Amino acid sequence: MEKRTALPLQRAQEVSRPERSDAARNRESLLETARRIIAAEGVDALTMDRLAADSGLGKGTVFRRFESKAGLFTALLDSTEKEFQRRYIFGPPPLGPGSPPVERLVAYGRERIRVFDTQSDLLREADAPAAAFDPAASGAGTASEAHIAMLLRQSGADLDVPVTAFMLLAALRAVMVLPRDARQRIGVARLADGWESLVRSLLP
Amino acid sequence: MEKRTALPLQRAQEVSRPERSDAARNRESLLETARRIIAAEGVDALTMDRLAADSGLGKGTVFRRFESKAGLFTALLDSTEKEFQRRYIFGPPPLGPGSPPVERLVAYGRERIRVFDTQSDLLREADAPAAAFDPAASGAGTASEAHIAMLLRQSGADLDVPVTAFMLLAALRAVMVLPRDARQRIGVARLADGWESLVRSLLP
Repeated sequence: MEKRTALPLQRAQEVSRPERSDAARNRESLLETARRIIAAEGVDALTMDRLAADSGLGKGTVFRRFESKAGLFTALLDSTEKEFQRRYIFGPPPLGPGSPPVERLVAYGRERIRVFDTQSDLLREADAPAAAFDPAASGAGTASEAHIAMLLRQSGADLDVPVTAFMLLAALRAVMVLPRDARQRIGVARLADGWESLVRSLLP
Repeated sequence: MEKRTALPLQRAQEVSRPERSDAARNRESLLETARRIIAAEGVDALTMDRLAADSGLGKGTVFRRFESKAGLFTALLDSTEKEFQRRYIFGPPPLGPGSPPVERLVAYGRERIRVFDTQSDLLREADAPAAAFDPAASGAGTASEAHIAMLLRQSGADLDVPVTAFMLLAALRAVMVLPRDARQRIGVARLADGWESLVRSLLP
């Protein structure tokens, strides 16, 4: 008889919480698998079929979770940014706290270029407008600009900090603007070295 | 009787040439007046009515020349860029030839920021997509990048020239990306000073 009694609303919400957490965990685990595929073989290797196979799930389950391939890529863009933020705010040095500001700024830009390079490929497949990663408009941009400004301030260099932070982030964001073939021709490593020269001449 | 004889096609074209030159001159003179209004009072002061009044022409003539306000602003964007190119390629120093590369690069960026600032206001009113002024895509961008690369090469600095030119142009282009209220709050002068610091630390 108890089984047939409708649960009071409050209790129903409590009961459903673990299910929602499971959904969130499953989603995170799918995104983790997707990131692993991208890291190993590039964005082109990631398909809904491949993600289902590598996760040991049915393709239907993967579609239900992200609705579409565009939905998957939008979720990946977001989670890639959040994971990068965690690393530059809380992670190990030289990207995270504990290194001199100039070393953190070099590491930040090197990693930002690598992340932008991935995100730029993801953007092509996602529903997200490029403006979502516009440093002047998006939360990601604001956080990045604040981080660069903090490191410039800590370095003690005699600079107009907000203006310089803004220009440096734009220089990094250039990677997002580059057409893919130009990015591949120049290569992420050369762009990262160019960033390092710029930072080391600015903060000697 | 001669008056009624239709002109042979070839001759008709010859006759019409001076008229076309007149049209080009009138158009250039209208754009010149428009640029003067913008330089003195900003983009908001430029309306089709005002342009007609200041040119001593009817509003209908101005509309026939540019079709729409968007057409006027698109023509202005283009002519502003061409006029700037003429000055940095052929004009007097320090922007044009004759000064040391570092001084030309400082002058180029200061002027580029001022031109971008005007163009950013024009873009809002024009039909032209922002991509038309994308340094990665447009002719204006290619010419600017080539100019920066030439000055970096002439300076003899030990840099990856194409990568650095690309990042420096992106830093300048940031001005186009800034929302108008942020641009006005920071001010073109401060952005220009930030550019000068960047260049002088890069090319000591």
